[in-house]
Amino acid sequence: MIYFDNGATTFPKPDIVYDAVMKAMKEYGANPGRSGHKLAIRMGREIYETRELLAKLFNIDNPMNIIFTYNCTESLNLAIKGILSKGDHVITSSMEHNSVLRPLFSLEKEGVELTIVNANPEGKIRVEDIVINIKDNTKLIVITHVSNLTGTIMPIEEIGKIAREKGIYFLVDAAQSAGVYDIDVKRMNIDMLAFPGHKGLLGPQGTGGLYIREGLLLKEIKQGGTGSFSHVLDQPDIFPDRYESGTLNGPGIIGLGAGVKYIFNRGIENIRKHEEELTKHFLEGLSKIDKVKIYGPLNEKEQGAVVSINIGNEDSSDISFILDEKYDIQVRPGLHCAPLAHKTIGTFEQGVVRFSFGPFNTHDELDYALKAIREIAKEV
Amino acid sequence: MIYFDNGATTFPKPDIVYDAVMKAMKEYGANPGRSGHKLAIRMGREIYETRELLAKLFNIDNPMNIIFTYNCTESLNLAIKGILSKGDHVITSSMEHNSVLRPLFSLEKEGVELTIVNANPEGKIRVEDIVINIKDNTKLIVITHVSNLTGTIMPIEEIGKIAREKGIYFLVDAAQSAGVYDIDVKRMNIDMLAFPGHKGLLGPQGTGGLYIREGLLLKEIKQGGTGSFSHVLDQPDIFPDRYESGTLNGPGIIGLGAGVKYIFNRGIENIRKHEEELTKHFLEGLSKIDKVKIYGPLNEKEQGAVVSINIGNEDSSDISFILDEKYDIQVRPGLHCAPLAHKTIGTFEQGVVRFSFGPFNTHDELDYALKAIREIAKEV
Repeated sequence: MIYFDNGATTFPKPDIVYDAVMKAMKEYGANPGRSGHKLAIRMGREIYETRELLAKLFNIDNPMNIIFTYNCTESLNLAIKGILSKGDHVITSSMEHNSVLRPLFSLEKEGVELTIVNANPEGKIRVEDIVINIKDNTKLIVITHVSNLTGTIMPIEEIGKIAREKGIYFLVDAAQSAGVYDIDVKRMNIDMLAFPGHKGLLGPQGTGGLYIREGLLLKEIKQGGTGSFSHVLDQPDIFPDRYESGTLNGPGIIGLGAGVKYIFNRGIENIRKHEEELTKHFLEGLSKIDKVKIYGPLNEKEQGAVVSINIGNEDSSDISFILDEKYDIQVRPGLHCAPLAHKTIGTFEQGVVRFSFGPFNTHDELDYALKAIREIAKEV
Repeated sequence: MIYFDNGATTFPKPDIVYDAVMKAMKEYGANPGRSGHKLAIRMGREIYETRELLAKLFNIDNPMNIIFTYNCTESLNLAIKGILSKGDHVITSSMEHNSVLRPLFSLEKEGVELTIVNANPEGKIRVEDIVINIKDNTKLIVITHVSNLTGTIMPIEEIGKIAREKGIYFLVDAAQSAGVYDIDVKRMNIDMLAFPGHKGLLGPQGTGGLYIREGLLLKEIKQGGTGSFSHVLDQPDIFPDRYESGTLNGPGIIGLGAGVKYIFNRGIENIRKHEEELTKHFLEGLSKIDKVKIYGPLNEKEQGAVVSINIGNEDSSDISFILDEKYDIQVRPGLHCAPLAHKTIGTFEQGVVRFSFGPFNTHDELDYALKAIREIAKEV
């Protein structure tokens, strides 16, 4: 089995992640709370440790400004709906995932003004195209850090600088970058950072997070028990309780902490270098195969470890099915929940076959996949 | 260690739950999707099996009418906000958790009309009190099945009958009952059933669900990628995709399925009987100890396995601290995120010491706790 669907969720996870989840479930699987017993306090402390690890990774001063969510989609919904109201203007790009686009389209129906900046066919957006679309009522810019379709790395540091200068909030969707690419919320002027726990951060599914800059108060999308201010019927204002109603995914969050520890131990720059080498090797191999069309920047320094291709005019699902059935290679075909991105690169009808690599993939696996693609390309 | 905080989260879980979570993470920890590879398909199939098990447990015809959420709080938010709009009237009780009350208070500020029916000091509500509060614009009745403070079992079948007759939607909060008490959504005329995965259903944290009756379309609270209709920018209408945006907690849901299997194997009536016996034994023991005040119906047939007490006028947190430190008994003091329920039974200032039992607690553990309470009561 060769797993190249790390853009959907990383698999496998480091062993310390499995161990941390099991230990949390078996040894102290309680519900944290303000005035809890030993087990509850231990669970609360370990959850806090994950906040600290993430804060260190993203250069966040106060770990309490990190909100734990179900997944990156929830983080993006909270950020987008928490800040935008009728009459506000928001700028995003055509490379966004439906987790950004669908909340924005939903808000557009309620009177939020939406501008979608088009990328070029390599998935690149120009900072100038954002600048010329800024208006007096522009309240938010939302940009993905790395495209889930082409892997294109977006100029978030430049965009962040402009957003800060203009007094516009800046939300980054780090679904494909967190855990692999450097993210510094201070240097990059990021006001809100949405990230999944189960992709590059190597944690379990059922985890995600949102960093919210100190002093920024969002409308919450859920209210409920927070273990704090239980006597008050209004949702409390304090971080992170305001946004974390109900029981957290304790063991999942602790597994996420173990994933981040793995990243620190191996070194985020080593993981990135490994993935860049894989991408480079794969792109080079693909370029020598007839009938293969490759999308994106075609340069491992300008894209994440995501390589999308098609073979001739074959349907992407058919190719993926052959890869899975005949070669036991797992990839993801179709539209990848990013319809406008597919329109941008011209693959809305055909879809693409997406290969996405993780820290445990090897060159040998790539060579085997290249051989498989060569064989398929000959036959179609 | 004696864990009596099962009302917050059950601990430990059955071994098959740990095993199912680990197997899902290690062997097929992929992201399900419509046109996926072998691992993704397997994950999707196993998640579906959990839907089937829950459907069987609650007598739900179509497993696709079960939505997976992060926790019961999210389920309640989705149900309440999905159905109520400005001008609608909603009836609830004073025994509700903040996961019901806070969303309702939030909606009240937006023009939803709210009636809170008061329970008596045992936590019992009278069906007549609900009936007399029904108005022309009453759209929803929300009632907890079992109080998390007094354990009081609410007359949900009678309320459901009235709601159906009057054409009012009926939402049941099964946070403290699912997995222990019989819930039949058809016989009980339940339109929406919110439940946690990690309490009586014995699944991992980070899981919860909402059953939505066929034909009932809610406003969703989150939009995003659903793996379906990816070409469309509006959130799709189909179940369960409409309400399940982003990556699900796959291993958690599969662990939840294992929890439900455990319940079927042991027999829900056997679990309930076991918990009733524990409650009866504990209530009898407590009644013989001076200075102990017990709240709720004081009858194991009228209450879930939740027993709340105080010792004299001692602060509930102090007593819980002694139980934890000196006796290694884990209970939960304070307000339990249910401020109006505490006002109802007169413990808003003192809080209570809550003992909540699970399927793995024993009579020996209860006897040890009774001995501890006797000793503490002598000393204060």
